[in-house]
Amino acid sequence: MFFENDRPYEECGVFGIWGTRDTDASRAIYYGLTALQHRGQESAGIVVCDTNGPIGNICAHKDMGLVSEVFHNDILDKLKGNIGIGHVRYSTAGASCVENAQPFSLNYAKGTLALAHNGNVINADEMKAKLESEGAIFSGSSDSEVIAYSIARERMNTDSIEKAAVNISKKLIGGYALLIMSPQKLIGVRDPLGLKPLSLGKAGDAYILSSESCAITAVGGTLIRDIEPGEIVIITKEGIKSEIMATAPKKAHCIFEYIYFARLDSRIDNINVYDARLRGGMALAKRYPVEADVVTGVPESGITAAVGYAKYSGIPFVPAFAKNSYVGRTFIKPTQSERASAVHIKLSVIESVVKDKRVVLIDDSIVRGTTIAGLIDMMRRAGALSVHVRISSPPFLYPCFYGTDVPDNSQLIASNSSTEEIRKRIGADSLEYMHLEDFEQMTGDLEICKACFDGKYPLENKSEV
Amino acid sequence: MFFENDRPYEECGVFGIWGTRDTDASRAIYYGLTALQHRGQESAGIVVCDTNGPIGNICAHKDMGLVSEVFHNDILDKLKGNIGIGHVRYSTAGASCVENAQPFSLNYAKGTLALAHNGNVINADEMKAKLESEGAIFSGSSDSEVIAYSIARERMNTDSIEKAAVNISKKLIGGYALLIMSPQKLIGVRDPLGLKPLSLGKAGDAYILSSESCAITAVGGTLIRDIEPGEIVIITKEGIKSEIMATAPKKAHCIFEYIYFARLDSRIDNINVYDARLRGGMALAKRYPVEADVVTGVPESGITAAVGYAKYSGIPFVPAFAKNSYVGRTFIKPTQSERASAVHIKLSVIESVVKDKRVVLIDDSIVRGTTIAGLIDMMRRAGALSVHVRISSPPFLYPCFYGTDVPDNSQLIASNSSTEEIRKRIGADSLEYMHLEDFEQMTGDLEICKACFDGKYPLENKSEV
Amino acid sequence: MFFENDRPYEECGVFGIWGTRDTDASRAIYYGLTALQHRGQESAGIVVCDTNGPIGNICAHKDMGLVSEVFHNDILDKLKGNIGIGHVRYSTAGASCVENAQPFSLNYAKGTLALAHNGNVINADEMKAKLESEGAIFSGSSDSEVIAYSIARERMNTDSIEKAAVNISKKLIGGYALLIMSPQKLIGVRDPLGLKPLSLGKAGDAYILSSESCAITAVGGTLIRDIEPGEIVIITKEGIKSEIMATAPKKAHCIFEYIYFARLDSRIDNINVYDARLRGGMALAKRYPVEADVVTGVPESGITAAVGYAKYSGIPFVPAFAKNSYVGRTFIKPTQSERASAVHIKLSVIESVVKDKRVVLIDDSIVRGTTIAGLIDMMRRAGALSVHVRISSPPFLYPCFYGTDVPDNSQLIASNSSTEEIRKRIGADSLEYMHLEDFEQMTGDLEICKACFDGKYPLENKSEV
Amino acid sequence: MFFENDRPYEECGVFGIWGTRDTDASRAIYYGLTALQHRGQESAGIVVCDTNGPIGNICAHKDMGLVSEVFHNDILDKLKGNIGIGHVRYSTAGASCVENAQPFSLNYAKGTLALAHNGNVINADEMKAKLESEGAIFSGSSDSEVIAYSIARERMNTDSIEKAAVNISKKLIGGYALLIMSPQKLIGVRDPLGLKPLSLGKAGDAYILSSESCAITAVGGTLIRDIEPGEIVIITKEGIKSEIMATAPKKAHCIFEYIYFARLDSRIDNINVYDARLRGGMALAKRYPVEADVVTGVPESGITAAVGYAKYSGIPFVPAFAKNSYVGRTFIKPTQSERASAVHIKLSVIESVVKDKRVVLIDDSIVRGTTIAGLIDMMRRAGALSVHVRISSPPFLYPCFYGTDVPDNSQLIASNSSTEEIRKRIGADSLEYMHLEDFEQMTGDLEICKACFDGKYPLENKSEV
Repeated sequence: MFFENDRPYEECGVFGIWGTRDTDASRAIYYGLTALQHRGQESAGIVVCDTNGPIGNICAHKDMGLVSEVFHNDILDKLKGNIGIGHVRYSTAGASCVENAQPFSLNYAKGTLALAHNGNVINADEMKAKLESEGAIFSGSSDSEVIAYSIARERMNTDSIEKAAVNISKKLIGGYALLIMSPQKLIGVRDPLGLKPLSLGKAGDAYILSSESCAITAVGGTLIRDIEPGEIVIITKEGIKSEIMATAPKKAHCIFEYIYFARLDSRIDNINVYDARLRGGMALAKRYPVEADVVTGVPESGITAAVGYAKYSGIPFVPAFAKNSYVGRTFIKPTQSERASAVHIKLSVIESVVKDKRVVLIDDSIVRGTTIAGLIDMMRRAGALSVHVRISSPPFLYPCFYGTDVPDNSQLIASNSSTEEIRKRIGADSLEYMHLEDFEQMTGDLEICKACFDGKYPLENKSEV
Repeated sequence: MFFENDRPYEECGVFGIWGTRDTDASRAIYYGLTALQHRGQESAGIVVCDTNGPIGNICAHKDMGLVSEVFHNDILDKLKGNIGIGHVRYSTAGASCVENAQPFSLNYAKGTLALAHNGNVINADEMKAKLESEGAIFSGSSDSEVIAYSIARERMNTDSIEKAAVNISKKLIGGYALLIMSPQKLIGVRDPLGLKPLSLGKAGDAYILSSESCAITAVGGTLIRDIEPGEIVIITKEGIKSEIMATAPKKAHCIFEYIYFARLDSRIDNINVYDARLRGGMALAKRYPVEADVVTGVPESGITAAVGYAKYSGIPFVPAFAKNSYVGRTFIKPTQSERASAVHIKLSVIESVVKDKRVVLIDDSIVRGTTIAGLIDMMRRAGALSVHVRISSPPFLYPCFYGTDVPDNSQLIASNSSTEEIRKRIGADSLEYMHLEDFEQMTGDLEICKACFDGKYPLENKSEV
Repeated sequence: MFFENDRPYEECGVFGIWGTRDTDASRAIYYGLTALQHRGQESAGIVVCDTNGPIGNICAHKDMGLVSEVFHNDILDKLKGNIGIGHVRYSTAGASCVENAQPFSLNYAKGTLALAHNGNVINADEMKAKLESEGAIFSGSSDSEVIAYSIARERMNTDSIEKAAVNISKKLIGGYALLIMSPQKLIGVRDPLGLKPLSLGKAGDAYILSSESCAITAVGGTLIRDIEPGEIVIITKEGIKSEIMATAPKKAHCIFEYIYFARLDSRIDNINVYDARLRGGMALAKRYPVEADVVTGVPESGITAAVGYAKYSGIPFVPAFAKNSYVGRTFIKPTQSERASAVHIKLSVIESVVKDKRVVLIDDSIVRGTTIAGLIDMMRRAGALSVHVRISSPPFLYPCFYGTDVPDNSQLIASNSSTEEIRKRIGADSLEYMHLEDFEQMTGDLEICKACFDGKYPLENKSEV
Repeated sequence: MFFENDRPYEECGVFGIWGTRDTDASRAIYYGLTALQHRGQESAGIVVCDTNGPIGNICAHKDMGLVSEVFHNDILDKLKGNIGIGHVRYSTAGASCVENAQPFSLNYAKGTLALAHNGNVINADEMKAKLESEGAIFSGSSDSEVIAYSIARERMNTDSIEKAAVNISKKLIGGYALLIMSPQKLIGVRDPLGLKPLSLGKAGDAYILSSESCAITAVGGTLIRDIEPGEIVIITKEGIKSEIMATAPKKAHCIFEYIYFARLDSRIDNINVYDARLRGGMALAKRYPVEADVVTGVPESGITAAVGYAKYSGIPFVPAFAKNSYVGRTFIKPTQSERASAVHIKLSVIESVVKDKRVVLIDDSIVRGTTIAGLIDMMRRAGALSVHVRISSPPFLYPCFYGTDVPDNSQLIASNSSTEEIRKRIGADSLEYMHLEDFEQMTGDLEICKACFDGKYPLENKSEV
């Protein structure tokens, strides 16, 4: 799963920092967002504030594109401040415009407020309609604006921005990780189900809030802990405070972070993503063993599960593909009529690794099946005796309402075909998907949401969307 | 070795195609050059000709940048033709300008001629001076122009372009792979020592000449064989002809293609690059064994040797690094004063893989040592008990005169320090470089040039440069 | 007065169209805004709506830059609709960002609303503070948003958008021309003093509202009449309705439209700009005659007054300067140490015209005086016997609070020096400014605001800003 | 005549400087080329050399685009040198590519040579063929390369570059102004007929060679004199030398420089362009008088002749058009079906000037006639009683072989229609073209080439092209 149109998408990554007097917040956020870039490549934004200066002077920059495209040295130089929040976003084509880029900021009686969020609030439209009926006026159509607006409005009737954030968060239904910045405070909120990840870290004397711990490490910091489901943390010059604003009877951590989204070196809810992925591969090996000579994985998403499969089965793991890292966004894809194919140009098989071998090939999912079919074909032409495919997740069967852009049924080979039909279609000697029960091997007793696989949604009104 | 300023550079890749009537040569070359992009990222160029139309109508486009930056669909649409040659180039900063981009074309009494070359002709300046003393006039300063000019001039006194190419090639001293195109012919020439690689392939009815076989495969073709050292092949509508224009008493294939330059899935002079690199790792394990729990490699250049080390030693290979693929050319590198470091942002260690483990870390070379020092430090902080470094090549000690941009002494940690000093500097528990004798393990009885390691140059006047 | 930093600035131009079913509103607005480009070069924007389709589908595009830079064919193609409004803006550097580009649009319970305005509302901050104290939340800091917000909010308690527009307009203090678009209506409002111009025109069956009549003509239409001070016009599919929403005891049309801002071919408040400027030149000649051989003007701003001076005095008018039209925004200005000067490169004097002549040189104003000093020097070096400068406006002495960005005192040569001192500084043989009483010659009995010259502001609370 | 596709084109402008030790040649050339930009907008280039440093170090930059687009501060900073030459070029679409941008430089036994030329050498192809038959090899197809090559080649058999330039120039047939730079010398050559202009000037201690004197003035210098037809000037550190290398029985200065090409403030061959154009208008008035109330001209090309017509006839000259200077290269032209027209958007008539008036309208030529027809129509709709058109040149009837891109017959309204037919087509009350005999009024006894009007070419083999 490595082509743009052949994978599920996470919608966002958030990164915030509360630095000391001399912290260059915008550069720290720049590096943090670069480490979270895998969570969203459509737009990027940074908002900073200088707590040393006059209150309320917030600077922002956001635009369409990668972090390294949106920000240059001269822009970072202008974003002066020691605290700030940043955001990377992916969204479906329709709503893809700079107006929807985050963070979102607004001005009101109590000053200025900026907000970045990852996730999907199911009742945002409902909240917006209600607010509009009460006279609210919006400049755009994003649910971020609805949340920011609601918090600002609530703030006018409460003592503090954190109390307002708590009051509003309690009303939000769905999965979300929020970063809120007022000129004097940095606040992080995580949904009561824990659907979306949010980590707390420290770099020197600076506090960091980040979607994933890999970004904390990237800026030279260390992970302190995860923000708890339903927890709000407030960072001010007095230090860090915390409160559990709401609890859910059961947690529902998104399993897809472990299968695919999160970066290999992140640690989410006390589980290393690498370990979970490795154990997933081991569970695959235990449940679906096969006689073979080598185990390999589709770069990069299938590699770790392949290492796990190898570890359990005793069959050696060997990288079997050379990847062309120069095939980027502007690459002109070959047309059907040309001999060259996009898959061949992006990946090629190392003949020596597979020749006269029985191969186990691991990937994390199958969307349309065209990529894996191409790879299997390459392997056979390179002399593989057999290719046994093992997928480190069950087939997608249900839509996600909490912010994960799972491909819809029309695109999914699994929604229209049996496993045997897919096996034939992709040309594998055998094909097995991870068993739902084996998620326990991956994530132990962590309470997870796996609704996209089994249709059991953690919230009742999930289908209102 | 993955940072721009921390590795040796190859100077070029060439790709030519002689297609049938309907071949879209420019697109085939586009995909071929994309597969050779690792050989040069500074400039790219394509020259094509339509043998169906009026004789001599050659179209060209070249510019600074990656293949995907230089060529767009509308440009490829204008490059109409069924035969053509292309080039990707790296060069040192000084001479970095569009005037030196290749292929180089010229007009003369016999028509038009285009030329692309990979390598370095030691006596180019001498030839140029002699030609100038005889009245030659040049528009630029590249040795490509000297070669093209010489061939054009020779052509005026000979029957055919191939005869001219033979006569001139005999005078060239150094390492080179040349592609020459006249409106009716595609010619490939390889230096008598075989210093530079050149492969012959076929895709359907089209013939291909390419620096590496990986590009032949990328366009859906298959490798036929290597062009022999000293061989010239002439492809016309009558088919392919070949001649040995010159022989050397001993061949001198550049060992660096196997150690570092060539792509993992290429096959050069009947040796798979992957196999050579794997056997290099095995030889390292045999000569420099160590008690350890895991073997890993620096992505991407150290991975295959690590797999080999693991295979021989029986210690399991595990990928230990997560790589951030969004750190590209426009990325703003952190300054010294910032906590974040370029190495940390580009690569991060997977804690679970190395924690409480004795680790063998493989890379293909050490230039300044800053990168590997950073990685070792990361590993220790992730809990590695010990880090034993094994380098899959000997230390660079001598300059290369044949087209490989080996870092000069001032940059090389090895030229000023003993292995023990380097070990201390990078913070490794042990450090060993590949032994010169072990190249035999990599490439068998292939006659190789390893002058950059032992100073034994295959040509006497190597030092005239 | 032709250099960026050597002239006063108008802040905006607005253009709206209510077309028939097939009108391509975005292209008409594109041409209209191009004709109003002299009123603002910083940003440009267009919002359109298709009244044939489902209600409320508004499309917008705005960005920093000239109209021809912000809009391309593919963008105009996406802006489908038969009604729409557009805006060109200039603003001072500080607030120069895309967030402040207009038109401004917002969503609320009653749907969508877009607004473009030219002018300055003195009590906008006050209104904003009051709204915020009542709970209003804003996404930016522009007074356009305050007006749009106020109208949207008012709309929730009134029957119609036009009634809301009337109620809010009555509260606005200052100079303004507003265009408001709801999905079914196009509304134009002009301030009761008539400070800012707004014209009504027709092109075929389409109605047009424009800051100046020149833009109506540019799209092939004809001027119907000016919108009256205090008038609101509402255009719907039923046709056009009008109402006087408020009246002022005395009008106060901005004299600067006639002196400098408006385009030569516009007609504002029943006075042709060309005629006013011509009569201004005649009045100058009458009051400040001089013995001379030729009259000329600084291109383009001084030409028409020069023609008038010539007409009254009988001294022939001759264009005396060649203008280099290739000196644009990216031109690198010469430094002090270079012989070349920006004035010399932009304008050069025609020697034959001035040699051995006594010259009258007309310009519309003097800000720093550097440009005119350079021109006088050129004339002397070309052989002019004497150079008599006549300025077709009095010296700026007071700030403008109604949307005209008059240079502040620190920049103005006139605020610190007597006329005689200025004359010496610029090297003129004589220097005279238009007399305040002579405005009557220009604009007859039109009630004008000339506060920037005499400090008599039409509104009492002018100084609250 | 102001639209791109509605006027004849000059092909080039050249500018060279020999400065003192501290002269910043590249910036002086930048300003000089900006002043010559009207002579060519397709590409721009600068080559400089530092005579203080080691011999032969030439730096060059050229690209497609305007001078202000091709050069930025950082590029000029790199072009270090105290002597240099520059070039602006227009060419027809076919050969429009960066390879044909000038100056052209080459390397040969005697060093380096750069060349910039304006004009057309009729026998360039012949020279090239002959050189190729003798073994010459070219990198491109431009006649500049042929000239540069020939001079370099000749230099090898002569004592000096100036002697080589003389020998080769004698062989050139056609119109040309050449600037040649070797690392120690700056040379200017003008064709024996004087078809192309070339001026000598001085700025401080620096010598300047320029196509027009306006560029000498723009950099703060003064015109010394014109280079004589057939003269070569050589500037070295010893000063300036001159030689007449060839003479023609009769001169043939291009009349089009006076009618249209040259800038108003230039002086060419001792005649001020402004004066010539003014006298042209006077001659028109004398030969084709008409009863009228005002005289006006099409901006910018018809203005000066209109002033002349007014002067002779006593009818007052008044500027009658407002020009929109924001209609640039990226402007989207209206389609036929839109009410707006390109002519209307670019120019608009000042109603007051023409209403109830009999108008004389002057332009310098008519190509297709669409522009003038649009202007006449505007004038009538603005109330003009009659519009009498006077064209300040005769109709084009013959092609130019000397470097002026006169529109070909298929585009020319004059080549297919009688004057009466054209008058009807454009809707004028009367139409007269300048009489061939009246050129004497413009340029006195200057020997001119007016072949495009009368077919009498100054060279016999003019038709070989």
